[in-house]
Amino acid sequence: MTQSTQNKVDSKQDLINYVVRLGDDAIVLGHRISEWVSEGPFLEEDIALGNVALDYIGRARMLYGYAATLSDDGKTEDDFAFLRDERQFENYLINELPRGDFAYTITRQLLVDLYNKYYLLALTKSADPTLVAIAQKARKETTYHCRRSTSWTLRLGDGTTESKQRMQLAIDDIWGYSHELFESDALEQRLIDTGVAVDCAALKQPWLTDVKAIFEEAGLNIPQQDWAVRGGRKGYHSEHLGHLLTQMQFVYRSFPGANW
Amino acid sequence: MTQSTQNKVDSKQDLINYVVRLGDDAIVLGHRISEWVSEGPFLEEDIALGNVALDYIGRARMLYGYAATLSDDGKTEDDFAFLRDERQFENYLINELPRGDFAYTITRQLLVDLYNKYYLLALTKSADPTLVAIAQKARKETTYHCRRSTSWTLRLGDGTTESKQRMQLAIDDIWGYSHELFESDALEQRLIDTGVAVDCAALKQPWLTDVKAIFEEAGLNIPQQDWAVRGGRKGYHSEHLGHLLTQMQFVYRSFPGANW
Repeated sequence: MTQSTQNKVDSKQDLINYVVRLGDDAIVLGHRISEWVSEGPFLEEDIALGNVALDYIGRARMLYGYAATLSDDGKTEDDFAFLRDERQFENYLINELPRGDFAYTITRQLLVDLYNKYYLLALTKSADPTLVAIAQKARKETTYHCRRSTSWTLRLGDGTTESKQRMQLAIDDIWGYSHELFESDALEQRLIDTGVAVDCAALKQPWLTDVKAIFEEAGLNIPQQDWAVRGGRKGYHSEHLGHLLTQMQFVYRSFPGANW
Repeated sequence: MTQSTQNKVDSKQDLINYVVRLGDDAIVLGHRISEWVSEGPFLEEDIALGNVALDYIGRARMLYGYAATLSDDGKTEDDFAFLRDERQFENYLINELPRGDFAYTITRQLLVDLYNKYYLLALTKSADPTLVAIAQKARKETTYHCRRSTSWTLRLGDGTTESKQRMQLAIDDIWGYSHELFESDALEQRLIDTGVAVDCAALKQPWLTDVKAIFEEAGLNIPQQDWAVRGGRKGYHSEHLGHLLTQMQFVYRSFPGANW
């Protein structure tokens, strides 16, 4: 194998890994939101949450499906979703945190939806045309997601004493998981250099400006005491992901290769 | 195949099915109790609950192991525990109910432990020598289990207003699941006729006498309004069993044939 062929192989494997981890983010968060189905605070919101979950799961399917077409070993989207173990998932930790109460779910959504707003915009400028197409579709959904999570944050933050307290508790609890959203590892750096991946460090300022403005209007505070948890992109996860995968993968593991 | 050979085959399959459903009772309840590990009300009780769980799981292993030696198709105890689906489990429903609070767990244990006290005594008189041996071992554990669940019932029933209330709530909730413990289906009837299986209808009076005496001393009441849920022995289960099996079987389904 020549050096140039080897480089191509490496960069293709990089691309697969990158696409799969974006899929991991989407499927894990989609699964978490889907846990609200039939348990939403009222019927319309229950349906809205279900739709958001489907957006994320649909995004995961596009990404895993793309990874499957790239890989030479006959893998399918189902292999990526259902036959990998905890350590092979590279989603950001924020996506795997348990759904918590409604305030907790909304807070996570606000932080992640606003992140996606900037991330997907940047991804529409990727050198990879398939990623551009996926990002363009996902951006439209994200516009709607941001509107929802913003209006809920205002409503709950500026609501009753209890709703405000719950929102602030959720923010204090989740904030430390937001930092790794803006960190790229060596894999992503190589793909940033070739114009394929998003340089997420550049998204921090606009994201923070948005979050601050919404929190201020809602009467909520960004935590003073700062701490950070990292590891998702390396496959180091909280105890929660294993339980989530158990639920998510059980049927497929019981009936491997099953199709609708 | 002569008629007599066919009869032998049928009665052997009956015996396997009977042994497996007794194993199902034991493993499902053992799993439920094991959910208390690290969440017991205090350390000594945490350890005690873990030991009771292990007794039940050990009992399941003996029963599934015996079924495996009886079956001609190379099945192992793991196949019975980990590769059957919800509809193939024939445990009584009372064993699969979620663990609830501590009062709920103790109430279920009292009803089931006292049941086992009489069931296992009867099983020591089975025409099947392996079942006799298993019953003899399990009886010793059950003596200890009964002592524990009786003393906890007295302590909580005759305790604070809240502990009494929780015990009574648990009794009201579980009582309707106790009736099927005393009902035999056609399979068991055939094995009762050959002296192998326990005629559980005969256990109801002594069991009820024990329960009444303990409840009276504890200041607790047997519910007046009577209702009954049935179906475990037919493989008709509550929604809870599927979730339990998901947790219990996931690792084995992920790594089929795995050994320690």
